Amino acid sequence: MATGTGDRRDAGRCIVNLLPLDEDERAQFTQAASDIRQVFVNGVDTRERLVWPAAFPRDLSDQVTAIIGNATVDDVRSCRRLQWLQTWSAGFERYAAPGVLPDDVMITNASGAYGPSVSEHLFAMMWSLMKRLPGYAVQQTQELWRDMGATLSPFGGTAVIIGTGDIGSHFARLVHGVGMHTIGIRRHIEVGAEGIDEMHAFTELDEVLPRADVLAMVVPSTPQTRHLLGAHNIGLLRHEAIVLNAGRGDAIDAAALTTALDRGSLWGAGLDVTDPEPLPAGHPLWKQPRCLITPHVAGGNHLRRTGDAIIAIALENVRRYAAGEALTNRRR
Amino acid sequence: MATGTGDRRDAGRCIVNLLPLDEDERAQFTQAASDIRQVFVNGVDTRERLVWPAAFPRDLSDQVTAIIGNATVDDVRSCRRLQWLQTWSAGFERYAAPGVLPDDVMITNASGAYGPSVSEHLFAMMWSLMKRLPGYAVQQTQELWRDMGATLSPFGGTAVIIGTGDIGSHFARLVHGVGMHTIGIRRHIEVGAEGIDEMHAFTELDEVLPRADVLAMVVPSTPQTRHLLGAHNIGLLRHEAIVLNAGRGDAIDAAALTTALDRGSLWGAGLDVTDPEPLPAGHPLWKQPRCLITPHVAGGNHLRRTGDAIIAIALENVRRYAAGEALTNRRR
Repeated sequence: MATGTGDRRDAGRCIVNLLPLDEDERAQFTQAASDIRQVFVNGVDTRERLVWPAAFPRDLSDQVTAIIGNATVDDVRSCRRLQWLQTWSAGFERYAAPGVLPDDVMITNASGAYGPSVSEHLFAMMWSLMKRLPGYAVQQTQELWRDMGATLSPFGGTAVIIGTGDIGSHFARLVHGVGMHTIGIRRHIEVGAEGIDEMHAFTELDEVLPRADVLAMVVPSTPQTRHLLGAHNIGLLRHEAIVLNAGRGDAIDAAALTTALDRGSLWGAGLDVTDPEPLPAGHPLWKQPRCLITPHVAGGNHLRRTGDAIIAIALENVRRYAAGEALTNRRR
Repeated sequence: MATGTGDRRDAGRCIVNLLPLDEDERAQFTQAASDIRQVFVNGVDTRERLVWPAAFPRDLSDQVTAIIGNATVDDVRSCRRLQWLQTWSAGFERYAAPGVLPDDVMITNASGAYGPSVSEHLFAMMWSLMKRLPGYAVQQTQELWRDMGATLSPFGGTAVIIGTGDIGSHFARLVHGVGMHTIGIRRHIEVGAEGIDEMHAFTELDEVLPRADVLAMVVPSTPQTRHLLGAHNIGLLRHEAIVLNAGRGDAIDAAALTTALDRGSLWGAGLDVTDPEPLPAGHPLWKQPRCLITPHVAGGNHLRRTGDAIIAIALENVRRYAAGEALTNRRR
């Protein structure tokens, strides 16, 4: 990494820091950067916005050697001396795409920061559906005091979790803690994941679907994950099963899901991602009472803890960058 | 079942069993009752109704020595030879009231069976409010894809639980499991409760309210619990606090709660009990978006596990009754 020109070894380095920091945090970053110049751009007021703003100071492009934050691809490419990009997202693919950046530019991401936020959102949707709370919330608008019937409990049930990375493993730990058995589905079954009792390959998905009281889908966007749950296998789920999705919308065949919900052959579905997205007005899932839809808000920075975790990753990496140590969360 | 010839030692005893049992369960009860006559009244079809039906066979009043189930007070009083009443509720007070039954009639209840159901309902309301799911459910009726803003997590927060019996202790264990510190409020602070980290007396309530991220109220109906939370102390809660109530409606001053929610000086409230109850049409809480109302459904038999637990208590007591052993869950 970076380095070295005699006593003024960091005269050549410059960090542009786009994180929405408060005064104390800026002081911590300043200390971590040692004698590297660091330019702070954003104020703390945007901290709990779903997406942090990333106005990049183009006048600094010629000097910048490191960027903390999701500047645009054009901004990043404008920095000819760039050595390192730290994203505040888990996704980094657009910066790693061929031709965007020279091969020796390091990219680190915020993987690990979003597990709590997304998994908690899934967990909340699961509980809400089990106790019919979306139905009660809607009924409340009619000022109606009316029992809506039987409820479910996760206790003693089984959760099948497709995708057992940061988010899937966090979700597994949450449902494990309320008495569920957890089955993970991942490409490399030899890799364990905390919270997962049983690991299976994607080829075994249809075998485990009949065991699911809850099916949680948190797969990333790849061609292989399209319509993982569709007309060919949705009928394998129990009538009291709950389907949750916070990965990619088209991992579920929306038409097959709609049909299953309309028939009452599933207890319910909680979707934070849809296909298409945003879900257009008039789509039958909007009006399906067994379906709870949230507008892709499980991730992002709505949870204070998420922002804190991103900032902690970046702070540690600024310290390492200044000290000439290997960076954490390095993706290339 | 029924029988008793031979030495006819139980020719004098007769159980009327009002539980909604399936065939296997009836067989288990028959075996447990040994040679005591046992009359089954209800079918399994009503098992997940909020309240089980309890049509009592009055033609048997003269023979009945034990009743399993919440027959009416009049039904129970009609049984002059009654030795034992097993309720399927936690409440038993109306049967124990002066003059209803002779002092030597044993009463056992289903205490312990409702903890999971009510505490899970509170837990689901808490998560739902933290992630703004009632708002998203209502917005969904307008087919609107719109971010509603910041969310909360229980992780690292503090729950204050007023009433630490079966339900409060169950709730404490649930929130403890997702990283909350738990403070219990009970009359006899020397009695611990599983899941509670700190126990305080009712006189210390106002001192602990400022520490609450979640305030869960599960106090039974007594004159002392009226308006425990009201205009005098609701302002002690944090602006991001969530209030939950599944005990008695008038433990909260509804007017003070409405004002606090209208001002945005609380994050939200989840109420399964209200004052008055049912909440009348036109009451301002119906329209308050920070308030989630469910129509007193947290208890009852909507959760299969609740019915199973009640039946397990009753089955064990029938066995003990037949064997001449001391009954469990005895209340007098």
